[in-house]
Amino acid sequence: MRLLVVQSNTSEFMTDLIVEEARRAASPDTEIKAVTVGFGARGIECRTEVAIAAHATVVAFAENAEGIDAGLISCFSDPGLAAARELMPFPVVGIAEASMLTACMLGGRFSIVTLGARMAQPLRELAMQYGLGSRLASVRTIERRVVDAGSDPGSLADEVTALSNAAIEQDGAEVIILGGGAVAGLSRKLVDRINAPLLDGVTCAVRMAEALHGIGASKARAGSYRAPAAKEMVGVSPVLAGLFSEKR
Amino acid sequence: MRLLVVQSNTSEFMTDLIVEEARRAASPDTEIKAVTVGFGARGIECRTEVAIAAHATVVAFAENAEGIDAGLISCFSDPGLAAARELMPFPVVGIAEASMLTACMLGGRFSIVTLGARMAQPLRELAMQYGLGSRLASVRTIERRVVDAGSDPGSLADEVTALSNAAIEQDGAEVIILGGGAVAGLSRKLVDRINAPLLDGVTCAVRMAEALHGIGASKARAGSYRAPAAKEMVGVSPVLAGLFSEKR
Amino acid sequence: MRLLVVQSNTSEFMTDLIVEEARRAASPDTEIKAVTVGFGARGIECRTEVAIAAHATVVAFAENAEGIDAGLISCFSDPGLAAARELMPFPVVGIAEASMLTACMLGGRFSIVTLGARMAQPLRELAMQYGLGSRLASVRTIERRVVDAGSDPGSLADEVTALSNAAIEQDGAEVIILGGGAVAGLSRKLVDRINAPLLDGVTCAVRMAEALHGIGASKARAGSYRAPAAKEMVGVSPVLAGLFSEKR
Amino acid sequence: MRLLVVQSNTSEFMTDLIVEEARRAASPDTEIKAVTVGFGARGIECRTEVAIAAHATVVAFAENAEGIDAGLISCFSDPGLAAARELMPFPVVGIAEASMLTACMLGGRFSIVTLGARMAQPLRELAMQYGLGSRLASVRTIERRVVDAGSDPGSLADEVTALSNAAIEQDGAEVIILGGGAVAGLSRKLVDRINAPLLDGVTCAVRMAEALHGIGASKARAGSYRAPAAKEMVGVSPVLAGLFSEKR
Amino acid sequence: MRLLVVQSNTSEFMTDLIVEEARRAASPDTEIKAVTVGFGARGIECRTEVAIAAHATVVAFAENAEGIDAGLISCFSDPGLAAARELMPFPVVGIAEASMLTACMLGGRFSIVTLGARMAQPLRELAMQYGLGSRLASVRTIERRVVDAGSDPGSLADEVTALSNAAIEQDGAEVIILGGGAVAGLSRKLVDRINAPLLDGVTCAVRMAEALHGIGASKARAGSYRAPAAKEMVGVSPVLAGLFSEKR
Amino acid sequence: MRLLVVQSNTSEFMTDLIVEEARRAASPDTEIKAVTVGFGARGIECRTEVAIAAHATVVAFAENAEGIDAGLISCFSDPGLAAARELMPFPVVGIAEASMLTACMLGGRFSIVTLGARMAQPLRELAMQYGLGSRLASVRTIERRVVDAGSDPGSLADEVTALSNAAIEQDGAEVIILGGGAVAGLSRKLVDRINAPLLDGVTCAVRMAEALHGIGASKARAGSYRAPAAKEMVGVSPVLAGLFSEKR
Repeated sequence: MRLLVVQSNTSEFMTDLIVEEARRAASPDTEIKAVTVGFGARGIECRTEVAIAAHATVVAFAENAEGIDAGLISCFSDPGLAAARELMPFPVVGIAEASMLTACMLGGRFSIVTLGARMAQPLRELAMQYGLGSRLASVRTIERRVVDAGSDPGSLADEVTALSNAAIEQDGAEVIILGGGAVAGLSRKLVDRINAPLLDGVTCAVRMAEALHGIGASKARAGSYRAPAAKEMVGVSPVLAGLFSEKR
Repeated sequence: MRLLVVQSNTSEFMTDLIVEEARRAASPDTEIKAVTVGFGARGIECRTEVAIAAHATVVAFAENAEGIDAGLISCFSDPGLAAARELMPFPVVGIAEASMLTACMLGGRFSIVTLGARMAQPLRELAMQYGLGSRLASVRTIERRVVDAGSDPGSLADEVTALSNAAIEQDGAEVIILGGGAVAGLSRKLVDRINAPLLDGVTCAVRMAEALHGIGASKARAGSYRAPAAKEMVGVSPVLAGLFSEKR
Repeated sequence: MRLLVVQSNTSEFMTDLIVEEARRAASPDTEIKAVTVGFGARGIECRTEVAIAAHATVVAFAENAEGIDAGLISCFSDPGLAAARELMPFPVVGIAEASMLTACMLGGRFSIVTLGARMAQPLRELAMQYGLGSRLASVRTIERRVVDAGSDPGSLADEVTALSNAAIEQDGAEVIILGGGAVAGLSRKLVDRINAPLLDGVTCAVRMAEALHGIGASKARAGSYRAPAAKEMVGVSPVLAGLFSEKR
Repeated sequence: MRLLVVQSNTSEFMTDLIVEEARRAASPDTEIKAVTVGFGARGIECRTEVAIAAHATVVAFAENAEGIDAGLISCFSDPGLAAARELMPFPVVGIAEASMLTACMLGGRFSIVTLGARMAQPLRELAMQYGLGSRLASVRTIERRVVDAGSDPGSLADEVTALSNAAIEQDGAEVIILGGGAVAGLSRKLVDRINAPLLDGVTCAVRMAEALHGIGASKARAGSYRAPAAKEMVGVSPVLAGLFSEKR
Repeated sequence: MRLLVVQSNTSEFMTDLIVEEARRAASPDTEIKAVTVGFGARGIECRTEVAIAAHATVVAFAENAEGIDAGLISCFSDPGLAAARELMPFPVVGIAEASMLTACMLGGRFSIVTLGARMAQPLRELAMQYGLGSRLASVRTIERRVVDAGSDPGSLADEVTALSNAAIEQDGAEVIILGGGAVAGLSRKLVDRINAPLLDGVTCAVRMAEALHGIGASKARAGSYRAPAAKEMVGVSPVLAGLFSEKR
Repeated sequence: MRLLVVQSNTSEFMTDLIVEEARRAASPDTEIKAVTVGFGARGIECRTEVAIAAHATVVAFAENAEGIDAGLISCFSDPGLAAARELMPFPVVGIAEASMLTACMLGGRFSIVTLGARMAQPLRELAMQYGLGSRLASVRTIERRVVDAGSDPGSLADEVTALSNAAIEQDGAEVIILGGGAVAGLSRKLVDRINAPLLDGVTCAVRMAEALHGIGASKARAGSYRAPAAKEMVGVSPVLAGLFSEKR
């Protein structure tokens, strides 16, 4: 299976980190192709950056779809997920949705531990949008910029551990989702320090993408996820516009 | 008050139609500035087009914010609404949200009558995302392309009337929202044929924008709607990138 | 536009306070007529008082409807709102509903700060009844009687500020609604001390009433908000009974 | 046990009908005292009439509480239920709430069959207000005035049967609630014609009142249902006002 | 009325305790027959034990149904409730459901105070499953094994009191449900120490069973609660299998 | 990976059918061990049979857990899922939950097409219990016994096709779940006749089990899914009882 990982911010070093974790998570016969989006923020930490990233992610899918079997969006806001799912002929997953659905199979309610207090409300909204509001115990956040996630890893690990255990003891969480591409891989190091299953978004998403590919459901031919109708597009990526042309 | 109307698709003739309706709806002291987004689809009828329009809408806000008191997004998917609300120093409304909230003050449950069956599910999701799922009676759709909305107006009026009355009688709707910038103004002509209040999104949004301006709430200084932090942006509109620069 | 403000408790001094704030909030061409209800409690602080106030409010509407374009109920429990909306030929707003809907356009979730711990649960129920339960972050209350709201204003301001900031920091509120006619005007003085938009119910309701008048939706001719059928009434205000007579 | 039945509309013949059904439903040691409210509509069929009835019901409770062990409100909108529950030292039930809760113990989802299409939406709202929205399959209504419920009983029985069976077959109802004091007793005659348990509101409420009395829970001393604080009341029933006086 | 109480764990001493409380709660003309299930855990404190108890409870109903008018399941997880309700010709109640529905008639939101932290999430799920999620304020738990509930009663009473009052003051509970057959009777001793109505599950369930019997609704002949179709059963209680045979 | 498939009814021929489909669905390195439960109904079509099957399923897990990496319950009611998840050291999936979660990644709302009208309501409840009520468009059922699923396959295929397309066109479904172990494999034959992705429960569950195994989350050490405490068990499978003994 060829899996396209779209990294929705413009920091190449984060793509490297994520792809490394994706490769570790993947089955042996999964081949990973990673692309960094062509425009947008260096790290995605607010609603505007999510909006820009959604477009950039869709463009990246359009331009890299050749020969791909499944897609993965490695930003915890799942920017462009619904659009890519509609546009592409293959299944697409997002790390937030994939980890929330995984959590549903491991416990009663889950908490999200992530970077940036201002994303707490958007993530609550995301869970509700997915119809999973009643499964979300809480969102707990660390005040640290996404681009700085890698610095002082010991202190970050300590903060994540403290928040995770607080979510378990005070908020009734039974599963912890460590949210964000920037912290990909961290969960592996904390397994022994946290008393509930600890989920890494990239890992969950890789495995969910493989599962969807294996299930082999057909592309929708009705409803809001069927391929878009032909349409004149102005000022967008020519490849993307091509997907909307009559002759495609 | 200076109101910026951002038309989120790239069809100028639709901007003209919408701005005409917006001017008719506005208070005498509201001055309207309308802009058509710089890129994207000629009409917004699928999830991908909404995603592109969200970015285009945010760019349009960034580039036209000077001297503006309130903003309005005139596409019924409210593309970029949360982002524009976060980014701009003034209040921003969307025609879908504005008409749904208006409907809440006029009846128990509302139905949306709009163009394009494939938007039914996304609009249901939008209502749920706004926390208004229990107020939505149904979405009823007409199979007609957005760019063709203006042709054969009599037949369109008949279809809207039939669907609206079906929503009232069969779905328990007490208010009808006529959804979409493309049908701006049509509701005025159908008032006598439909037994429930019939809402035009542009009209509701203009009046809601005026209301928010009049209320004069301060810009959030905490939470997910405060202005974004400084951030390096790549490949986006220079004016938009400028809003994320350290020196702004 | 002529706006009828019905003050649902029997304290005239509170009507004066509210009408002053309503005038400050209104557009220049809005003329305000205020009436105090003819019976009921001096301040509304429990479920029984709300029930009495609902009837009193409906009577006040019936007796003062002549020449009115829109109505406003200035008690934070919105007593009689659904009934007045059904009975009157013009739009009617309530300060709780109006401020909750306004809050929805300014942030993700809102908290209500108000007087009287025993009203916390009824206000939670009100938000759920409006279908807005998922937008309500919390209700925080001050132990002070409504009729004493005006005494020791500095201490009240301090308490409101402390609770508002606690709601923002601990409950995830992004908008604060200062609930209750008794505290009308207080929000203007606290804008600089609270980091989220701070809404005054009377101000929101005046502007929403103007918006509804401007939108000009027709009166429902079907559903639960159309005018009541003729009916024999016993022992109620003659004017109200008259609205139910065959000959009206 | 002495049970006070408050009939919330002003039609004495309906009180007679209801009290007859209540006596049939009651345990042998339940003594029933019935009162008709002193003001309001002859039948309750719209939101305004519910609002008036809520006040009238509270007055009736205040004026007839002496020696009473439990209260029952026999109008299917439960007017004044929360208020009476707060005000009275004994438990109070309403026929809508009592039958909905009973239905929850007999099947998965219930439908309400009642008189008057305009009450469909208010009854949906009532179920949601009680937190039971997910248990309500549908509301099906007959176009007949409440005061005419007794005329042409055969045709009414046929209509109720048809709607009940439609609710079972098309809406997935597993229990049918026959809503309204005006149809008290009808359900006994239809048991063989309807394939799901058929509930009579008055019967359910009498038995729920007995159950609550038997359970013997203490009156709340905290929260929104504790007895109201002393308060000056203007222009209301002197007995009701007396319940708010300092010396009570 | 003959009431069958099925005690879903295998501890006879708990059956004795429960039946004593049930007799105290019952009306004079209610005759109680109690049975302890034939297999399963000594106390029910986890999901697996609930699953086993559901089967054991259904068997106990099948084997003891002769001459019974109503059934009661005295374990706070209501194991086998839906199944027994389907299988038996008489109404069946569970102590969790019965006390939650009772609470709905006494206050706005209720909290559950029970033994065993690991049951907090399953009880939250139970409330949601009953459609009562919005009425549940919180679950507060004591770390004590069910079989030890009777030891050191003073300390248990103190803990229950502390948690109940915390639920009232911090979680907004207006009714407290003391959950679990193991604490049957304790609530009577704590009435004066807790400021909200305090419900005992067994007492509520006995009275609800009497109410359902009094209401006399017919057994469902359609839907998911009608008697099961004939079916070959393997390896289950012969009496239970007999209920599924063609000749029953 | 060694996957234990527990077939929760006692029909061996159905186990054969399911295991054949499971093998077709599985990755090459997944080894499948299938067991039929030791007691219960030949087909699971009502609430009582689900309750018995839950116990039987847990016993089957206890007795066959040796050397297993993941578990799968192949009955569409997911009997015993929560219990097995708690009890076993490895992840466990159910075909209903797995297909609902898969559907969430393929479309907006899903419908379930299954055998037996009386299971419609229990399946609605299951979706709500999983917190997915807002994603469920409808349940559509065929009147056919589970054990007869294999007879007249052409007519069954036609019925499933008709109901699926009705769900897409009338109920707004964007994904169809073909529910039930008895119809395992049928979906492969209908792909071309149905315009939305068509999911087979067994296929989804096999792939979800592989995904969970691949993700490798640790067993919960806190909350309601950690292994049960030691407990005396009476009259249950010795192996199951052994899992509750002190010395395990």
